[in-house]
Amino acid sequence: MRILTLYALPKAQRRQLLAADPSFEFVSRDDYRPEMAPTIDVILGWNRDAAAIIARPNKVGFVQAMSAGVDYLPLQAFVDQGIELANTSGIHAEPIAEYVIGGVLSFYRGLFPVATTWDTRERFHQMGTLRDRHAVIFGTGHIGSRIATHLRQFGVNVLGISRHGNPDPAFDQVATAAAGQAAIAGADIIVNAMPLTAATQAYFDADFFAKLTAKPLFINIGRGATVDQDALITALTTTLRGAVLDVFAQEPLPENSPLWQLPNALITPHVAGQTEHLREQVGEIFAQNLQAYAATGKPAIHRVDLAAGY
Amino acid sequence: MRILTLYALPKAQRRQLLAADPSFEFVSRDDYRPEMAPTIDVILGWNRDAAAIIARPNKVGFVQAMSAGVDYLPLQAFVDQGIELANTSGIHAEPIAEYVIGGVLSFYRGLFPVATTWDTRERFHQMGTLRDRHAVIFGTGHIGSRIATHLRQFGVNVLGISRHGNPDPAFDQVATAAAGQAAIAGADIIVNAMPLTAATQAYFDADFFAKLTAKPLFINIGRGATVDQDALITALTTTLRGAVLDVFAQEPLPENSPLWQLPNALITPHVAGQTEHLREQVGEIFAQNLQAYAATGKPAIHRVDLAAGY
Repeated sequence: MRILTLYALPKAQRRQLLAADPSFEFVSRDDYRPEMAPTIDVILGWNRDAAAIIARPNKVGFVQAMSAGVDYLPLQAFVDQGIELANTSGIHAEPIAEYVIGGVLSFYRGLFPVATTWDTRERFHQMGTLRDRHAVIFGTGHIGSRIATHLRQFGVNVLGISRHGNPDPAFDQVATAAAGQAAIAGADIIVNAMPLTAATQAYFDADFFAKLTAKPLFINIGRGATVDQDALITALTTTLRGAVLDVFAQEPLPENSPLWQLPNALITPHVAGQTEHLREQVGEIFAQNLQAYAATGKPAIHRVDLAAGY
Repeated sequence: MRILTLYALPKAQRRQLLAADPSFEFVSRDDYRPEMAPTIDVILGWNRDAAAIIARPNKVGFVQAMSAGVDYLPLQAFVDQGIELANTSGIHAEPIAEYVIGGVLSFYRGLFPVATTWDTRERFHQMGTLRDRHAVIFGTGHIGSRIATHLRQFGVNVLGISRHGNPDPAFDQVATAAAGQAAIAGADIIVNAMPLTAATQAYFDADFFAKLTAKPLFINIGRGATVDQDALITALTTTLRGAVLDVFAQEPLPENSPLWQLPNALITPHVAGQTEHLREQVGEIFAQNLQAYAATGKPAIHRVDLAAGY
């Protein structure tokens, strides 16, 4: 079984897999040549080479994405060709939640905008603590739940927004977007942790931002394309106190984007889920899934529902 | 009883105090004239005018500081003249703890240094989560305890350093500095939350920083003079990963201080304890203490032990 590792598999995990099944043959990103395309059975990670492989006759049966969101993959082709797909949902939850708490506290505790002179005036009247603030988190999956848990440890009241609105112990309340309208309008902190699907494309638009009444912080660690970026830029000078943004409609965020210039936008280059141990964690999920796929034709964990898109 | 309010007392609290005791007479900072000095009984806050009042014959019997630390007051004069002193110990604990968590997460989650371009290389390999990190907090009072509580909610192992080393449920462990030497040397996060006393003056010096082995973050929300600033500046290019600094030996921090230029120093202008409700909280403590002082000659809460200095 030939496995293309576009995302680097740590050596220790590769050795363990080879010890368990000597028929595994790994091809690294650097060693891959286009003429190998029809011989690849499994792909770890995704890039243009992977897209080219499944765009032509191929024998790929399983793809392991290294991300939680899989919106950037040609899901219809997976359905048509019966390719199994797994994500790494869950491993980014704690790193992303800590990123969100860090971003929120940076604004509330006067750490951002970063001081370059001893000017306390602006800082003083904007500073507060988190207790009794109201947060609304769009998306109640692993990431949204973990953010809610940490925010509640600081005394924040957290409403989760999901399609179904079913209760979840990680949140003070869960509601559908329709049922939560009043709470959304009055929120102090709004977090987008939704996957990108047809239903969430440009969900945060001019209408959404216009309804906000409490000058909230807007935090996007979901997907850039869920936000109408021009509307966000306008909102940053009107209804929003500020924004913490890790994802963008276009990545890398272009150097000439007005977002880089806005003093109340805290920007990071799509790193919120990153940790020094991420490769090992992805490798562990992949190792389990590869062995299950070799044995049964299906990944063991984090299998993506291709119809739902996550 | 004439009360000089150098720190503004909110109107509602002033009205309540006057309703309770019409003999209270409040003099605001703006209305104060030096010739009133011998007539002042009580002072809320502190500045040069206050220092001038007690430097000459006076009838001041009680001073309410608006800070937790009282090192900037002439404590010996308070002892000599039998002036009661109260601080506001406790009300800064939560705001300062949230500041510390925000500062720590800013470094660990790639929010600081603030990105100005889409360059992920440096950011990626330095990012981690807080779980299983080791923190050492110097000072196990209200502020140190609250920082410990929040850090432990993120899975950080927290050692408190105090003079006595007695156990405290807010910390995983408490030790004296002597007993904690090995843990201090290997810490990931070091927080100074000690008051400034003769024993803590320049406590964090070149020797201290030289012993650190795990490239920790150093966070100072105690007092600037507990740190040898030149040694800190050197350490920021050697044994420290970075620093979050709210207090300085000289405040305002001079514009030409090298600290402003160091990319791994996150500086704030002595605002870590600030919140939008701080005046009301100080006012409540003062209201209690003023009434107790009028009735008994002693403040009711947060009375400072002048010999200990806190």
